[in-house]
Amino acid sequence: MGAGILGTGGGGNPYIGKLRAQEIVRQYGNIKVIQPNQLKDDDLVICLGGIGAPTVGVEKVRGDESARALNELENYLGKKATAVISGEIGGSNSLEPIIAAGKNNIPMIDGDGMGRAFPEIHMKTFFIYGVSWTPAVVCDEKGNTALFTKAISAHWLEKMARAVTIQMGCAAVFATAPMNGNEVKNTAIHGTLTLAKNVGEAVQNAQNNKTDPVNNILQAYPGKLLFEGKISDLARSTTDGFARGHVLIEGSNQYKKNTLKIEFQNENLIAYIDNKIVCMVPDLICIIDSETGDPITTELLRYGFRVSVLALPAPENLCTQKALEVVGPKGFGYDFEYEYLLNIPRK
Amino acid sequence: MGAGILGTGGGGNPYIGKLRAQEIVRQYGNIKVIQPNQLKDDDLVICLGGIGAPTVGVEKVRGDESARALNELENYLGKKATAVISGEIGGSNSLEPIIAAGKNNIPMIDGDGMGRAFPEIHMKTFFIYGVSWTPAVVCDEKGNTALFTKAISAHWLEKMARAVTIQMGCAAVFATAPMNGNEVKNTAIHGTLTLAKNVGEAVQNAQNNKTDPVNNILQAYPGKLLFEGKISDLARSTTDGFARGHVLIEGSNQYKKNTLKIEFQNENLIAYIDNKIVCMVPDLICIIDSETGDPITTELLRYGFRVSVLALPAPENLCTQKALEVVGPKGFGYDFEYEYLLNIPRK
Repeated sequence: MGAGILGTGGGGNPYIGKLRAQEIVRQYGNIKVIQPNQLKDDDLVICLGGIGAPTVGVEKVRGDESARALNELENYLGKKATAVISGEIGGSNSLEPIIAAGKNNIPMIDGDGMGRAFPEIHMKTFFIYGVSWTPAVVCDEKGNTALFTKAISAHWLEKMARAVTIQMGCAAVFATAPMNGNEVKNTAIHGTLTLAKNVGEAVQNAQNNKTDPVNNILQAYPGKLLFEGKISDLARSTTDGFARGHVLIEGSNQYKKNTLKIEFQNENLIAYIDNKIVCMVPDLICIIDSETGDPITTELLRYGFRVSVLALPAPENLCTQKALEVVGPKGFGYDFEYEYLLNIPRK
Repeated sequence: MGAGILGTGGGGNPYIGKLRAQEIVRQYGNIKVIQPNQLKDDDLVICLGGIGAPTVGVEKVRGDESARALNELENYLGKKATAVISGEIGGSNSLEPIIAAGKNNIPMIDGDGMGRAFPEIHMKTFFIYGVSWTPAVVCDEKGNTALFTKAISAHWLEKMARAVTIQMGCAAVFATAPMNGNEVKNTAIHGTLTLAKNVGEAVQNAQNNKTDPVNNILQAYPGKLLFEGKISDLARSTTDGFARGHVLIEGSNQYKKNTLKIEFQNENLIAYIDNKIVCMVPDLICIIDSETGDPITTELLRYGFRVSVLALPAPENLCTQKALEVVGPKGFGYDFEYEYLLNIPRK
């Protein structure tokens, strides 16, 4: 549930992620989670995650692709991974490495490469801060495997991997960014599995105690309530391997006279109130069920849902000049610079 | 010139292929050509060729991609190739392996996997008759490399490789079908480099002696003259990574009252005279300049060209039931069975 909220709409359906993780724990026992600082220099950590459109991922059956992707990369490198890390903490992708961790009996890192979810492979802090993006593997559930041995940029890896993913049916699993302990320490966003757990528990507590989930979430991840209302319009299509579109929300309570618009590419990118931008990527725009606090991801958006929209400040290492070139508005084709619009201190 | 004719419209621009081959011979000396029957069981032969749309291939600069593709496959296999073979004898692809052969100082095989050109990777006799299609590599001129380690069918390899090729700019080079000597003997179409040379020399002789090129070509490759006329209409677009469309030819001489239509996907697939099919894939439909005998490939088709259209019977191993499923009309989405329509004996 917490990862679903941090996914800002994307990262894969969190309910399916939960079912798969539970099955793995049932099969292999508890999975050990370690902190980046516990890694040694000669560790080999590999980043795993899903690639595709969440509109497809919620419907398509998946199996042990992440374990196969990991094995393929290990074979090519001639070395076994000593730990795995999520490409993104958002949605089911936060738990994708659990499958490989369980099968290979290795730990998962408490951290990830986004601190949220982003739609494209090259948008990971690993690559922004210097880790090699090759070799990388994309596997599907049918038994097809593509190994990218050379890509002239992380963005070129994204282009090639996305094209193969679309052929595979728009949902697949990748392994990339082979790292030593130091590289993980220096480039990962730390502690995000714990953060997801805290956010999820905040929602559960609200549900159990019948209290307001928004307050609880904002205690676990300080941010602000952006809007409350009812989904009045939804344009969503699966194109170029992504779920793209926008959602309109008609305000209620103190927002009664306002309309919120969110544009998304798998993840929510820009939020406008009455056509004025109020939050922009990489800051997190999270849509939740107003009553239960459950995350409403891009593939679940539907006319008539009563929702609350939260804005959470992005982790600092997504907001450096270097990072903003990749994950700021310009990285998504908008022609304006990033601006921090939440009048609260960044964590 | 001969390979251009055998390409039935595709296989890459033959003039560019000639320039590249000449440059390699200038740099590395003559390239040794050996017969499939000279191969030993423990030889490792790798198939090389271009992938993409000929409309793009004629414009895009290429370098030593085929040597890099070969090296990538050798590294993955942990073994050096002892010879290389063309994926298809048509067009510049007939000579693509020369680059890797020259750089690595290994021979080229007098043979190929199509006996002509076909638009898709899986349409090779190697795969039709049982050779493994993985591992396979696709390289571009920029430095990107995709290695397909597992594909559930040769057609799936085609799907994934084509998707990556489109990202690479619609023209790239592949290496596939690692074979031992026996596999080459049993699955390749033998002697096609020699055949291309003979057809090319037939045209050159006609040009030198100012005689009819059609007669000369039909002596080197027995077949029939299908039509003569002037190109009166051309619909050609580059879509899904292929050059697709059709060309209309208004008849002249004994064909004065007739119109020939050819449908193509990179290569010429079906020829109709006045809407009646007169030749169909895998038999070769070759458009040549009526005066000079020069091949007119798909990317060179232009309104007003005066052309002769030849029909040449396909090699026998393209016409078995097994092969026709892949390279007959149904392999290209037509809903009719292959029929041999040339009233001359197949070689």
